[in-house]
Amino acid sequence: MDSRTRLLDATATLLADHGYHGTGMKEILSASGAVAGSLYHHFPGGKDQLAAAAVERAAQVIGERMERALATRPPGDAVEAFYAASAETLVASGFRYGCPVGTPAAEAAILGEPVAAAVCGAFTGWEAAIGRGLCAHGWPEEEAARTASLLLALFEGALLVARAERSTAPLELAARHSRALVERFSS
Amino acid sequence: MDSRTRLLDATATLLADHGYHGTGMKEILSASGAVAGSLYHHFPGGKDQLAAAAVERAAQVIGERMERALATRPPGDAVEAFYAASAETLVASGFRYGCPVGTPAAEAAILGEPVAAAVCGAFTGWEAAIGRGLCAHGWPEEEAARTASLLLALFEGALLVARAERSTAPLELAARHSRALVERFSS
Repeated sequence: MDSRTRLLDATATLLADHGYHGTGMKEILSASGAVAGSLYHHFPGGKDQLAAAAVERAAQVIGERMERALATRPPGDAVEAFYAASAETLVASGFRYGCPVGTPAAEAAILGEPVAAAVCGAFTGWEAAIGRGLCAHGWPEEEAARTASLLLALFEGALLVARAERSTAPLELAARHSRALVERFSS
Repeated sequence: MDSRTRLLDATATLLADHGYHGTGMKEILSASGAVAGSLYHHFPGGKDQLAAAAVERAAQVIGERMERALATRPPGDAVEAFYAASAETLVASGFRYGCPVGTPAAEAAILGEPVAAAVCGAFTGWEAAIGRGLCAHGWPEEEAARTASLLLALFEGALLVARAERSTAPLELAARHSRALVERFSS
């Protein structure tokens, strides 16, 4: 993996954990193994540019994975597998890791423009990706869009509550409900 | 309103907007109109103690209001009115204000123990309050608890996405779905 990608992935992990304001440049360097010269070579705009790019990359990687899983598997199974993987990551991190988009999203009111735009684009991109995944099963487009928005909100909220309560129970309930939501129109 | 309550309410508003780490003591003093001496008189533990107490008070006030509304009105109407009020506050604040519990909850991994405990207690308290509100309409207790957890997660997630997207659409969709959820067992 090249040094730019290492920087982006380390930053996304720190954003999921600490949020934007809680993540320092020193931590990013230490977690990525990069040197400051390399960071400023790739991201001359500093932390704002790096964080925005990290959110964009995480959003794209996760969005593509979600869409592919939803489109190629029974959607209920895809949704449940996604929740199971998230719960596993949450537990493995000692209930620290949230979502690399959702955690900084809570700081919406105090984010600089590039990061705020990246977070907004990540959410709308995920809604579109989930919608396309459902449409691959013959869902009507509007119903797919509405359900995608509900699925995203429920996941982000359940993860937020699960972290705070240090319990996977909210994720398990949300997983079951999400399965029911996507099985309404699917075979 | 006494100076302690003014401090708590100003802190809760700042927490909903900026989160814990984004909220400074100077801002709290300026927003509450209190003097530093009064703040440290009421909260000798400083920002941690004040933020924990502000989360606890907001959680109690909002929880009692939710439970009363759910128990005394058709639950679907109560849920929709709650969402409508939240959307109105969000728009009036220029899409800044989140939830006084949900915004700091995203910082779970970097909160001190008193604030983390207050956030956790706020969420479990709201789940219990919503559950009691549904039980007042004859819901079976376990089903009420499951639905309460879903309603809370969906609300927190929809508010998070709505702030980031600067749109009330996620809240409107979540409101409609939440109404359907609470009308399954209610008359």
